[in-house]
Amino acid sequence: MSLLKCQITTSLDGFVAGPNQSLEHPLGEGAIHLHDWALPTKTFRTLHGEATDGETGIDDDILREAFANIGATIMGRNMFSPSRGPWGENPWRGWWGEDPPFRHAVFVLTHHAREPLVMSDGTTFHFVTDGIHSALAQAKKAANGKDVTIGGGANVIQQYLAAGLLDEIDIHIVPLLLGRGARLLDFPTPPPLQLEPLRTLEGRRVSHLRYRIKH
Amino acid sequence: MSLLKCQITTSLDGFVAGPNQSLEHPLGEGAIHLHDWALPTKTFRTLHGEATDGETGIDDDILREAFANIGATIMGRNMFSPSRGPWGENPWRGWWGEDPPFRHAVFVLTHHAREPLVMSDGTTFHFVTDGIHSALAQAKKAANGKDVTIGGGANVIQQYLAAGLLDEIDIHIVPLLLGRGARLLDFPTPPPLQLEPLRTLEGRRVSHLRYRIKH
Repeated sequence: MSLLKCQITTSLDGFVAGPNQSLEHPLGEGAIHLHDWALPTKTFRTLHGEATDGETGIDDDILREAFANIGATIMGRNMFSPSRGPWGENPWRGWWGEDPPFRHAVFVLTHHAREPLVMSDGTTFHFVTDGIHSALAQAKKAANGKDVTIGGGANVIQQYLAAGLLDEIDIHIVPLLLGRGARLLDFPTPPPLQLEPLRTLEGRRVSHLRYRIKH
Repeated sequence: MSLLKCQITTSLDGFVAGPNQSLEHPLGEGAIHLHDWALPTKTFRTLHGEATDGETGIDDDILREAFANIGATIMGRNMFSPSRGPWGENPWRGWWGEDPPFRHAVFVLTHHAREPLVMSDGTTFHFVTDGIHSALAQAKKAANGKDVTIGGGANVIQQYLAAGLLDEIDIHIVPLLLGRGARLLDFPTPPPLQLEPLRTLEGRRVSHLRYRIKH
């Protein structure tokens, strides 16, 4: 069965991004070290075309496993582009250059329609304007039996959680306090979900928590 | 060296208590299951005089270790008593009956002076009206070389964190979403602390994260 999953790194106080995200600070102010645990791993470096070597061990294992059975990605507009408006004449092609690390279909939730953007090496960005259910249906079809992952950000994850559509979440907790920004779990009235802890693993400077979500 | 430590259980969204704490809901609304991981353990049941048996294993080991070298406890008024006002004629004797589980000196931060309250079996409550530094100095003296722990609540922990006085924190994360209440880490402008992850352990339905705090 194809599952909807999510990998997300949070500060110890629960933020996935700092305040004032911008071209200069794609992750928001103060959040530049949020993903330090992942950057030196062999899997991350290979996926991003930086090198074929890197650190191995638990953090690398977790990243490799995270990408192993993924057939499509869903993300919010903010994760794809810094611009809120219509796409314009020379539309933004994503944060990842001409060879994005996804190598499968990526569905971007946006209010502005746009033709699919075919990148090299297997990544195609599809722009979905009719909501999260439609994006999930399209992503599951594209995944062809594999799982679908939510790339982020927090708002998109929250929408899928609240709608009872997310099956599994991996939360990577790092030893930072951000204080402000986008919280992963920001539900003044939490949705009626049951979280089933699947595992807790110790990384080098990160704690890996996995939950199954029962609806 | 005597350290200032803290054991605290939080929901996955970071709350140590729900909203509207009261006599009826000492932990606030919706938070009754926050400590479910600890209640069935042998250590908890023994400390609270319920029984001498109970669950063993990682959660029990962690609780036993948590209490092993503690010589004094500091807590906020709210953790000791539901009343905010002066103590009155028949003053509150704590939530724990006549045989509290501490069995050492407990320093209660309050705005209202009161004579020490000597309970059976080694627990004496001291009421400290001159602030967190004074409470810590008194607690370290009483601990006589052992460590001091902060019982809670969130506000007291935050004060000691912000003042750079907390040396180590154990955060026990349980699979609940509370949405509202008292957040453990609620610093819009975080204090300049360095958190050093010491360990991550998997309990039965809880993740145990320990950090050393460098000032």
